[in-house]
Amino acid sequence: MSGTEQLDPRIANRLKRDRDGLVAAVVRQYDTGEVLMLAWMDDEALRRTLSTGRATYWSRSRGEYWVKGATSGHHQFVKSVALDCDGDALLVSVDQVGPACHTGTRTCFTDELPVEAGAERSEVTA
Amino acid sequence: MSGTEQLDPRIANRLKRDRDGLVAAVVRQYDTGEVLMLAWMDDEALRRTLSTGRATYWSRSRGEYWVKGATSGHHQFVKSVALDCDGDALLVSVDQVGPACHTGTRTCFTDELPVEAGAERSEVTA
Repeated sequence: MSGTEQLDPRIANRLKRDRDGLVAAVVRQYDTGEVLMLAWMDDEALRRTLSTGRATYWSRSRGEYWVKGATSGHHQFVKSVALDCDGDALLVSVDQVGPACHTGTRTCFTDELPVEAGAERSEVTA
Repeated sequence: MSGTEQLDPRIANRLKRDRDGLVAAVVRQYDTGEVLMLAWMDDEALRRTLSTGRATYWSRSRGEYWVKGATSGHHQFVKSVALDCDGDALLVSVDQVGPACHTGTRTCFTDELPVEAGAERSEVTA
């Protein structure tokens, strides 16, 4: 690819990036809706994702781009991408091959926290 | 509530906060799995969410805590909360009353972006 390619300015203008230039990318399995993981994108990661159909993120820990599955084989084929109302989050619907999590589980969200009290919908609808 | 209450240190120690002390909170409808919105929590917002069962976030734009639905009536009753593998994201499963988005739509992710090229799973399984 040419080094001069940039994210479409009509999209770039709608992004509300954090101080590191990133937006959050919520990743879900496109057909079941299962939430698989959360990753981060800058403009270039989003450009690559939209233009190649392969989910590409910015690694905050390693400080580099990564194409999901490039080393693990756990590819993510992008079906659709939606931006949220205030431009700081993306919903990336993918076809996930194998586990999404580097720990080997299907989803990264496996650590349940205790909800001590629960309010019920019926309590406030009166 | 007492001002001395703190998030359980066993949970706090697992959080990997950004430079603003926040983790991302992916919010979904607990029964359908629909992804509704993305918000932000610091330790105190998570403590309030877990202890009250009412989704409570930190507003990056307003610089204050907000209990979802407190002004709009679009309450979120928390069914479960899960932390991800690297501690920088939460998956909050809620019973959402009415629209989750302040624009009046059910979900905040309504702005579809064009995916220019799509790779198919079959192309790499050979």
